[in-house]
Amino acid sequence: MTTRQIVLASRPVGLPTKENFRFEHIELPELIEGQVLLKGIYYSVDPYMRGRMNDAKSYVPPFQLNEPFTGGVIARVMDSKCDSFITDDYVMGSLPWREICIANETEIHPIDATIAPASYYLGVLGMTGLTAYIGLVHIGKPKAGETVVVSGAAGAVGIVVGQIAKIYGCRVVGITGSDKKADVLREEYGFDAVINYKTTADLEKTIGENCPDGVDIYFDNVGGEISDAVIRHMNFHSRIPLCGQIALYNDTARSTGPRLQPILLTKSILMQGFIVSNYQRLFPEATEHLSQWIKEGNLKFTETVIHGFDQLPAALFGLFGGENIGKMIVAATDKDI
Amino acid sequence: MTTRQIVLASRPVGLPTKENFRFEHIELPELIEGQVLLKGIYYSVDPYMRGRMNDAKSYVPPFQLNEPFTGGVIARVMDSKCDSFITDDYVMGSLPWREICIANETEIHPIDATIAPASYYLGVLGMTGLTAYIGLVHIGKPKAGETVVVSGAAGAVGIVVGQIAKIYGCRVVGITGSDKKADVLREEYGFDAVINYKTTADLEKTIGENCPDGVDIYFDNVGGEISDAVIRHMNFHSRIPLCGQIALYNDTARSTGPRLQPILLTKSILMQGFIVSNYQRLFPEATEHLSQWIKEGNLKFTETVIHGFDQLPAALFGLFGGENIGKMIVAATDKDI
Repeated sequence: MTTRQIVLASRPVGLPTKENFRFEHIELPELIEGQVLLKGIYYSVDPYMRGRMNDAKSYVPPFQLNEPFTGGVIARVMDSKCDSFITDDYVMGSLPWREICIANETEIHPIDATIAPASYYLGVLGMTGLTAYIGLVHIGKPKAGETVVVSGAAGAVGIVVGQIAKIYGCRVVGITGSDKKADVLREEYGFDAVINYKTTADLEKTIGENCPDGVDIYFDNVGGEISDAVIRHMNFHSRIPLCGQIALYNDTARSTGPRLQPILLTKSILMQGFIVSNYQRLFPEATEHLSQWIKEGNLKFTETVIHGFDQLPAALFGLFGGENIGKMIVAATDKDI
Repeated sequence: MTTRQIVLASRPVGLPTKENFRFEHIELPELIEGQVLLKGIYYSVDPYMRGRMNDAKSYVPPFQLNEPFTGGVIARVMDSKCDSFITDDYVMGSLPWREICIANETEIHPIDATIAPASYYLGVLGMTGLTAYIGLVHIGKPKAGETVVVSGAAGAVGIVVGQIAKIYGCRVVGITGSDKKADVLREEYGFDAVINYKTTADLEKTIGENCPDGVDIYFDNVGGEISDAVIRHMNFHSRIPLCGQIALYNDTARSTGPRLQPILLTKSILMQGFIVSNYQRLFPEATEHLSQWIKEGNLKFTETVIHGFDQLPAALFGLFGGENIGKMIVAATDKDI
């Protein structure tokens, strides 16, 4: 059986281009015992993938040249030579960007598409939701009445962080890059205030106006100058969970900015980089709360779905242009599940 | 009774100068019930005092113009109108820079000069030792076999941090500003390696050579370019207790440098500013360990003592020129106690 895959053709310098990706046809081997044949349904597209396109040591190994991209994928079982899965089961795993692929049964997990749409397992019930929960609740430690600022507020993680902060009784201020996103966050997701950093003349001042009691938690998805402006308003004993730095991922040189340590020192601020995969012990607790909040209607989720396996590279570019609201995914099929 | 005091004559721009200090004669009022008359013996001189010379909100309020400096002082009771202290008792407290002063009994604590030299209560048995212990042990969380780098290694706090790290079984690398200090740290205080940043051509590379397994804890007393160089070598899950930023205290503009967040994020690093006075609950534990280690001979202490009340401003300048090894104090008398 033949299928198509997307491989890393070359490493990008700065923003990725089409030339960094190559579509290839490959021949799949026969299934052997313990394996399943999978058809990809939904492919997750995430900012951290940009880092994996570099040949640099990081918390996940880099993609290899001429090897397929990998990431979170929801798939349907087409054929099975194992005891755990049967044909038509829905599964998820960290899988190659192939239209059809073979996986060992140990690499995949079942999902129940009757509880929530299958794609949610890439988002609010997957890495996205876990990241938001663990970063905000376990590193940020929100208390009722505190002010939480979240950058990249309309992104997959940001939109969940803001809603969890509201559940904890916090004032939530989002920072995003369009008036449309700002409206959605205020009107549909309960953010108390949202700042469009692209149309704000003096971001530092505007943050101050929107956070009259200062900032107790800054959930940072973006880094760069937006973070510089927020950090000027941090309170004593405030916390900064560092989740992403999308503003800097395409930089070709070490970015410079105001030194943080004097502020962190004089205000006893905690800054903690975190990677969700190191907090597996908290996954059951997090999943239980996230599911419960979804069931109660306190946690809503939104996706930007792009159709067609061919669109995977473009969808990844789109993240850096801020084209998504909520989780960005690519659907291999035309209809939702 | 008249005495002399040192007041803040003007706020410095950059490095403080003599013109920022003024000596004055004042008349002391009569003692009233609950008060003691004190003669200053040892005056603590600390880097954080530079921040208090600015009119800026920080973790301790700024010194006021035309008001005396205050800081840690060891004093002897000359006269007492309270039940807690009698003449000739040794006490300590946060007191004004006056040769003789009046304090309420609630502002001072007794010290026992038979256990350790009285001046140690400004240092290893005072704020200095507590700062080193709490920052290293409770924020850094050292484990045997880890590598600890300490900047400002020959300073009051650094010299204690290095020795505690050795007690915990760590490899200790100090960074300091003279070969003489480097020799002292290696030969008398057990540091495994010491780097003289002033004579090192490529600090980042030299740190790498001296930390072949990377850096697990960076106890930061100085900030600036030294910290930039250390942070490039931090390991996954490493910790940075932020204790001081002496390299930046005299800056007149916001200092800039490489952005830290991408490194903190990809390596899950914790950075925590801390102020020892917020950890009072840990003081008994810390004092117990510090005293025990001194008694066992595992923790040695050194002081740079400058004689004469007149020398207080010069001693403070001296901190920024790196003139001290260990704790810098000014003795009002010519003989040690």
